[in-house]
Amino acid sequence: MIKIAVDAMGGDHAPEVTIEGTLWALREYSEVKVLLTGPEGLLKQALNGRQVDFSRLEIVNAPQSVAMDEHPSKVIRSKPDSSIVRSAELVKEGQANAGLSAGNTGAAMASALFKIGRIKGVDRPAIGIPLPVGEKFFLLVDGGANADCKPANLMQFAKMGSIYAKEVLHVADPKVGLLNIGEEAEKGNELTKEAYKLLSELEGINFIGNIEGKDIPAGVADVVVCDGFVGNTVLKLIEGMWKQFAKSLKSQIFAGTAGKFAGLLVKGNLEEMKRSMDYAEYGGAPLLGVNGVYIISHGRSDAKAIKNAIRVAAEGVKSNFVGKLTQALTE
Amino acid sequence: MIKIAVDAMGGDHAPEVTIEGTLWALREYSEVKVLLTGPEGLLKQALNGRQVDFSRLEIVNAPQSVAMDEHPSKVIRSKPDSSIVRSAELVKEGQANAGLSAGNTGAAMASALFKIGRIKGVDRPAIGIPLPVGEKFFLLVDGGANADCKPANLMQFAKMGSIYAKEVLHVADPKVGLLNIGEEAEKGNELTKEAYKLLSELEGINFIGNIEGKDIPAGVADVVVCDGFVGNTVLKLIEGMWKQFAKSLKSQIFAGTAGKFAGLLVKGNLEEMKRSMDYAEYGGAPLLGVNGVYIISHGRSDAKAIKNAIRVAAEGVKSNFVGKLTQALTE
Repeated sequence: MIKIAVDAMGGDHAPEVTIEGTLWALREYSEVKVLLTGPEGLLKQALNGRQVDFSRLEIVNAPQSVAMDEHPSKVIRSKPDSSIVRSAELVKEGQANAGLSAGNTGAAMASALFKIGRIKGVDRPAIGIPLPVGEKFFLLVDGGANADCKPANLMQFAKMGSIYAKEVLHVADPKVGLLNIGEEAEKGNELTKEAYKLLSELEGINFIGNIEGKDIPAGVADVVVCDGFVGNTVLKLIEGMWKQFAKSLKSQIFAGTAGKFAGLLVKGNLEEMKRSMDYAEYGGAPLLGVNGVYIISHGRSDAKAIKNAIRVAAEGVKSNFVGKLTQALTE
Repeated sequence: MIKIAVDAMGGDHAPEVTIEGTLWALREYSEVKVLLTGPEGLLKQALNGRQVDFSRLEIVNAPQSVAMDEHPSKVIRSKPDSSIVRSAELVKEGQANAGLSAGNTGAAMASALFKIGRIKGVDRPAIGIPLPVGEKFFLLVDGGANADCKPANLMQFAKMGSIYAKEVLHVADPKVGLLNIGEEAEKGNELTKEAYKLLSELEGINFIGNIEGKDIPAGVADVVVCDGFVGNTVLKLIEGMWKQFAKSLKSQIFAGTAGKFAGLLVKGNLEEMKRSMDYAEYGGAPLLGVNGVYIISHGRSDAKAIKNAIRVAAEGVKSNFVGKLTQALTE
């Protein structure tokens, strides 16, 4: 059994969708057992009348609640019995093999870092975000954990991202690109110029050199390496561009009588494309460099996203990528 | 007469499109005179048989050619008679009121900086790039001139961008946003946290606070302020996303028999949208902080983009935004 601690209270639609996603995961993944952290009474009530195999679903009481905008350090300090902190603690204590939260991202990261700790040799754990582009997807590291980075941090992001893409996302020989503002080695800012040198000398990864913003949607790299400020900006800009894209389809392309009719004709295609753009398919984002498997999910996660995040957490455990990461980083 | 020095050899399709765009501009803007810099013989030949009013079109011989990937400092040093360097020199000498190039961006910037110089008080001139998003557009400052920036640089970018948007792009009371990875004042990296403080205290601009990547396509700000590394990444990512968007329309939405038919039904709408996304409409990008009007155009510029860039250069001169910038920066 792979035991996964799920923060039942995390996310915009918790606990309904976290419970829905959990039950869905239990039906699909027979080797998974879930430890739901949250207020016991409330969770029991929510599960009341549902068909539940309690040999594979355990409730771990964590009565304190955390708001989406609460300051991480404050949560760690004053809310040891919150569903977020407990989900990380269970991993630390070895009662769970992996943790998962769709709640306050900062608090979830802080909990995982503070409770589970870092892999020896990792200076700055990073968020690896699997993002769909066109017909494929890529892993963005760092997605926002470290706003200010040193060249050595980016080198570790590349190592960790490459191993995760290979072991958990099943990308063979992942192409690792350094996000920069020019393709030549000497281009960039102080950070990327130095990072380029380090990455060029790095063994064991498939470094394809500098890539530019335009190369990201083109799917040139499987792993895109950048500091957390740039990464988070890229992440949110892509989100915003697809939103604008959908808006343009409605207001500019499928407008007017003929447009509306055309829209009906391609309804299926539109839904197909929407699916291919659906981050929920890719499950959650791993905290790379933490000495255990901990997955962060989007606050807007639906039941399917939670179900897939549980799958990703289980694959993280099965693949032993933390062990492989530890080995690679101590080499 | 507003005299504009146009680098006839700049861009992927020079000199054909630069000449085409120039003649177009001369037809449309009666107060404009163009000084075309490039190899005299070649330009005369290219103009041969065309209807040209030579009282408003002068050829300035500049025989040396510059490759798109040549190093800026090398160009300045070893190619004083190149069409790029001469176009800036003519502004410096007062023979032209503004300069324009669609050639090697780095070399064009270096020429403008080296020949025309900076406005007193400006530490780092920046590129202001007008970018279409959805049904409107915004000005991105810095678009890539300064890969590493200090908080004070971003403050000047905000000032310069705000004045340019108002005076030349005719945006009333432009909303200035600081691109960041969170909306709260304390969010961001060391650079943006400090810049936020400076911008909050800055008078004379409409600072709307931090904006995130997702807010850019939504058109939340008229002027988006960031360092040149982030700006250039944003610029190229937006370019790449629209390309991906067009690709998805073809391969995913208007695919199959019904899809192709639907495509025909909305052909007009698609072209209308393509137009609204056309950077060529917005002309070139000004070098903000240079002590004169110098416009950088996209290397892929077509005749219409060159024509519009000439219009933008002329409006830059008429609005006297350089004078207004100088005043604002010395206050």
